[in-house]
Amino acid sequence: MTSIKIFCPATIANLNCGFDVLGLCLESIGDEIIIRKSVNKCVKITNIVGANLPFEIENNVAGVAALAIFEEANKRVAFEHGFEIEIFKKIKAGSGIGSSSASAAGAVFGINELLGKPFSKIELVKFAMKGEVVASGSEHADNVAPCLLGGFTLVRGYNPLDVIKIESPSELYAVVLHPHIEVKTADARSVLQPMISLQNAIIQTGNIGGLVAGLFMSDYELISRSLHDVIIEPLRKHLIPNFDEVKDVALKNGALGAGISGAGPSIFALCKGKESAQKIALSMENMYQNTEINFDIHISKINPKGVEVISINEL
Amino acid sequence: MTSIKIFCPATIANLNCGFDVLGLCLESIGDEIIIRKSVNKCVKITNIVGANLPFEIENNVAGVAALAIFEEANKRVAFEHGFEIEIFKKIKAGSGIGSSSASAAGAVFGINELLGKPFSKIELVKFAMKGEVVASGSEHADNVAPCLLGGFTLVRGYNPLDVIKIESPSELYAVVLHPHIEVKTADARSVLQPMISLQNAIIQTGNIGGLVAGLFMSDYELISRSLHDVIIEPLRKHLIPNFDEVKDVALKNGALGAGISGAGPSIFALCKGKESAQKIALSMENMYQNTEINFDIHISKINPKGVEVISINEL
Repeated sequence: MTSIKIFCPATIANLNCGFDVLGLCLESIGDEIIIRKSVNKCVKITNIVGANLPFEIENNVAGVAALAIFEEANKRVAFEHGFEIEIFKKIKAGSGIGSSSASAAGAVFGINELLGKPFSKIELVKFAMKGEVVASGSEHADNVAPCLLGGFTLVRGYNPLDVIKIESPSELYAVVLHPHIEVKTADARSVLQPMISLQNAIIQTGNIGGLVAGLFMSDYELISRSLHDVIIEPLRKHLIPNFDEVKDVALKNGALGAGISGAGPSIFALCKGKESAQKIALSMENMYQNTEINFDIHISKINPKGVEVISINEL
Repeated sequence: MTSIKIFCPATIANLNCGFDVLGLCLESIGDEIIIRKSVNKCVKITNIVGANLPFEIENNVAGVAALAIFEEANKRVAFEHGFEIEIFKKIKAGSGIGSSSASAAGAVFGINELLGKPFSKIELVKFAMKGEVVASGSEHADNVAPCLLGGFTLVRGYNPLDVIKIESPSELYAVVLHPHIEVKTADARSVLQPMISLQNAIIQTGNIGGLVAGLFMSDYELISRSLHDVIIEPLRKHLIPNFDEVKDVALKNGALGAGISGAGPSIFALCKGKESAQKIALSMENMYQNTEINFDIHISKINPKGVEVISINEL
């Protein structure tokens, strides 16, 4: 194969009580990336559509991630070609649903496919994390892990990287409301407190344990009872206008739980079944239309597969 | 039936990264309780063997728990008899493996059996928790839940009580070394810090999530990687002489993980398979023989059933 087109799904990280460890993969929204073998032994970005992003490899998340896998693969077997990347952005930057991670994950996944899959998906997470440094200043796996693996992912730890995929219960849907405002990373960080109470840590421990158990048991009631974040959400929610109102209306209309997607501004709700998700989305939409803020809203099944090939082109 | 004999297993609470939420049930050590219907419409303790415990109902954990279920049952259907309880203590008080909980759980379980099982096991947890007030000053479910339900139990939260049973992987064993020293509850509490770092809370969140996932997946490696407590163990371990040495020798000999059982002084190790558990127990035993402290050591499969009927006697 000489070129490949990839679907790079959006993701929700910092999933409620799973701050910094739990994420999930969406199905109905994502970037597309085309990667083709090139004569020059280098990585090059040749086209970016839908966003104003840098073409320089070292300043582009997909470029940095692509270079990481390219260089590592070259150490194993030197090869006589490079890669050209075209990026079609559909996930808005700064929306809080893993826009940069999708590009980084898609680039490393596509190159790995073209190379004949020398690396496992877990190894791909490490390469994609290199791209995250450009976007956020640190290597983290919160979004790239669910994007690459699909379902839910738990980042148990980083030394060494330990990512566990948890299959999603089959009827689980997410609704994501993206208010068109900017939440500055610096603000989202500065509101966090370096110390928290042991009591809240214990509550959070019970909830993350319950949530993981609920996912394994496909117990929607347990998932719902576990979706409470007593540590991060109370500190960050005021950065998102009308967060409480959106959450309340989602819960009143049957959402299993709701929270901040990533570091915001997107607000997510988890729902059982498509019809319930549609009803909940409508209620959130109606509520947010009362504000002065533009927004878009997505309904998505949890994506069981993660990043995937759309088409292959043999020349 | 007019009398019933009950096995009341020992338990490990505060299981490593699952402080205050995760516990497990042991199989090879436990109290026995005999409960018989009596003519007098009250609850009475008629015999206590193996420990110096109060006979007054209101000062005895089993008595208080028994009275709680007796009174609640009487509200539903007034009945014309009471119960006499004989307690055969085999779990040493203050050992950190749920001695008082075993008696409380056994009493409520036995009475429920004699009444024809009007209450679910989860309801029994609430009655048994009343007994815990006598022992520890507060209602907690850390030990009574695994004792009643078997396997692993996660206490997700208390408002309302939400207990989830998690089946144990079939090859999982526990080794428990009980040094014959007293760890005062006041000391175990006073070393805790009311505030902890967010960073440690995140590490603990990843580990409890990984541990729960590992139990569901019967993934012993993942269980092992998750058994790290960065919050409580560092503060409490100095209350237990040679804790680090016992833990080290257990890990070196193949234990999946180790930690403090309950609030101590017992030290537990989790192991895969009986042979491995025997080897690990021997290594811990050899190590502790170098100290001046008497101890006993138990090897136990994780008990899948919890408290159970040994025999029924019809008069």
